[in-house]
Amino acid sequence: MRISVIRKAHFNAAHRLHVPAWSEEENREYFGLCNNPNYHGHNYELEVKVTGECDPVSGYLIDMKDVKCMIDEEVCEPFDHRNLNLDVADFREMNPTAENIAYVIWHKLRKRLDARFDLAVRLCETPRNCVEYHGQ
Amino acid sequence: MRISVIRKAHFNAAHRLHVPAWSEEENREYFGLCNNPNYHGHNYELEVKVTGECDPVSGYLIDMKDVKCMIDEEVCEPFDHRNLNLDVADFREMNPTAENIAYVIWHKLRKRLDARFDLAVRLCETPRNCVEYHGQ
Amino acid sequence: MRISVIRKAHFNAAHRLHVPAWSEEENREYFGLCNNPNYHGHNYELEVKVTGECDPVSGYLIDMKDVKCMIDEEVCEPFDHRNLNLDVADFREMNPTAENIAYVIWHKLRKRLDARFDLAVRLCETPRNCVEYHGQ
Amino acid sequence: MRISVIRKAHFNAAHRLHVPAWSEEENREYFGLCNNPNYHGHNYELEVKVTGECDPVSGYLIDMKDVKCMIDEEVCEPFDHRNLNLDVADFREMNPTAENIAYVIWHKLRKRLDARFDLAVRLCETPRNCVEYHGQ
Amino acid sequence: MRISVIRKAHFNAAHRLHVPAWSEEENREYFGLCNNPNYHGHNYELEVKVTGECDPVSGYLIDMKDVKCMIDEEVCEPFDHRNLNLDVADFREMNPTAENIAYVIWHKLRKRLDARFDLAVRLCETPRNCVEYHGQ
Amino acid sequence: MRISVIRKAHFNAAHRLHVPAWSEEENREYFGLCNNPNYHGHNYELEVKVTGECDPVSGYLIDMKDVKCMIDEEVCEPFDHRNLNLDVADFREMNPTAENIAYVIWHKLRKRLDARFDLAVRLCETPRNCVEYHGQ
Repeated sequence: MRISVIRKAHFNAAHRLHVPAWSEEENREYFGLCNNPNYHGHNYELEVKVTGECDPVSGYLIDMKDVKCMIDEEVCEPFDHRNLNLDVADFREMNPTAENIAYVIWHKLRKRLDARFDLAVRLCETPRNCVEYHGQ
Repeated sequence: MRISVIRKAHFNAAHRLHVPAWSEEENREYFGLCNNPNYHGHNYELEVKVTGECDPVSGYLIDMKDVKCMIDEEVCEPFDHRNLNLDVADFREMNPTAENIAYVIWHKLRKRLDARFDLAVRLCETPRNCVEYHGQ
Repeated sequence: MRISVIRKAHFNAAHRLHVPAWSEEENREYFGLCNNPNYHGHNYELEVKVTGECDPVSGYLIDMKDVKCMIDEEVCEPFDHRNLNLDVADFREMNPTAENIAYVIWHKLRKRLDARFDLAVRLCETPRNCVEYHGQ
Repeated sequence: MRISVIRKAHFNAAHRLHVPAWSEEENREYFGLCNNPNYHGHNYELEVKVTGECDPVSGYLIDMKDVKCMIDEEVCEPFDHRNLNLDVADFREMNPTAENIAYVIWHKLRKRLDARFDLAVRLCETPRNCVEYHGQ
Repeated sequence: MRISVIRKAHFNAAHRLHVPAWSEEENREYFGLCNNPNYHGHNYELEVKVTGECDPVSGYLIDMKDVKCMIDEEVCEPFDHRNLNLDVADFREMNPTAENIAYVIWHKLRKRLDARFDLAVRLCETPRNCVEYHGQ
Repeated sequence: MRISVIRKAHFNAAHRLHVPAWSEEENREYFGLCNNPNYHGHNYELEVKVTGECDPVSGYLIDMKDVKCMIDEEVCEPFDHRNLNLDVADFREMNPTAENIAYVIWHKLRKRLDARFDLAVRLCETPRNCVEYHGQ
């Protein structure tokens, strides 16, 4: 019995979209208001989906408390109420677009999750803009 | 033209997570508050997804009134305002985790649905915890 | 500058509507499925509104961490994953309708909140049924 | 790095479900209230999902402003505050079921989207009824 | 113990904003796309709030099944899947703006509700546009 | 006929809670993570409620396009994708708590709104934290 469980979490962070290899003008033109040098911010909504074989005894795929704990330690504690560009080492060299944030979160969780599970993440930057990453 | 339709429904039920083969202490430790012998409860939100070939004349994949009726008869009537452990025969021997509830719902609907359709269900126990089952 | 802050919280509980002074049949007729002797349950969504004079120095009406803490201690810890009828002393003699649960929550929070603040609560038993109580 | 971005949009429209090849009575029986000759209407909620290889320099799969612009021009401007049967040429000969509206939207956007991207749409006619189309 | 209960409902309808005493051009200019002669439509979300003294025996302000029944009979049955301008007598002479729809709904419910209760309605035409009417 | 209309809008911004008259340590202790010197951010959700006498001819309290325009010019354009502390003059000397942001928004809109209308604003900083201000 192959099943998925989804756990939702959120964090609030500031960020700025900027590519150091481009000129100020190229950055402004490409990223628009998102390039504001003083930063802006979002309430990020995260969905973590874990897929695998359900344990027939407990009826659990995985203990949700463990999934919650993993998300708290890997994502919420280091990202919540932070400036992603300045406070989070992963984004020192990587532009914190929603795509890249989802990519970083997926890799942080993948390291913590047993290899028998598949992993996917969905990250909404606003109620109208989301990304999904499955690690392929 | 292969398409999916999704119909949402909900039911409110009490349950308790408990594995009879385990000791009281093992159950308490593994399931935490969800093992409360006096039960707790949820507003379950269900999404039923039916996939197949759209009928080119009517423009319908399937009549949504039939999907709604099937969900009402198979899920809402027997589960809503019930105690899943005590009132629903399927959970006499099966722990009513979200995973197992989704599994039971999928099999109840699968029997009612024409074989030319694929079926998937998504069940949210709380706004932050969901499961998905596709019958594989 | 008179302002209100609203803090939301939730808890999942089982309950049964029942008036001991009435016969089994009267209870069944009046409360319908909500009278199920085996209980049913809900994800209760709570909004706590505190109104008063904003502090001109901090720009806070009240520290939201204190409001959150008060709700956790007075409501979430004693109510979450409980059977309201059996596990919560307030409902030993009082029917746990949404109206009465809101009344009990209001009084628990009122005792903790400084007298210079007004208090109101809104409690949703399902996404379609809510109650509001302002203590008058 | 293969990733998906999702952009949400909405439009408000009137429609009537009706198959000209069927008698009035057959239409009434099959489509029920949705066959009302005077039309009824919905707030349609649309999700457009674009999948492909993320650009390693910008960190964008695709510029969301371009996706938004494409949806505005192809869907919101021609559909919003319209009568789908009378005002939108695509539905002169095609019954405006949610399935067919999703099919039409997918083809309009497919023409505008670079061939290196995959495309899927999800359209909700009400909060309880949705369809998904991936173009296969 | 003075308390309020809120019951939510919805209906899907077509309408057109138009003032017969004005010229076609004045109507077009004032109401914009909402004046489309072929109609457009919405999923209307309704909240009905009833306020009064809670019954100390049952713990109910009013039986929610009665409130639901009243809303179904007075609002959902006559309005759902209708064209408000053509199918609903109240809007033959009255422009079906959200304000006027809320006014009509309030008066229909007021007639059915015992005089010891206060009544308020909130009607959302879209997730971003709502009106509230308290009958004063 | 006295009625209210509500228009919703949103903006995404960075901010930092800080009282210059306090020491670094007092600020850190009082505001916690919200005092992060590198800022954090939110998707702010705003509800603007306008109350007054409905126009019996048009059936409008006020043209919602005018309300939307006023909110765009006074709030969304100056606040969206900004750093409230650095980019918005109102918060040079005022701590950008949700309470103070609501106060500033109310005063900006009050100046633009005809005196025959009452005005209230509700601002949600996260889905769990909101404030309401009515100008009294």
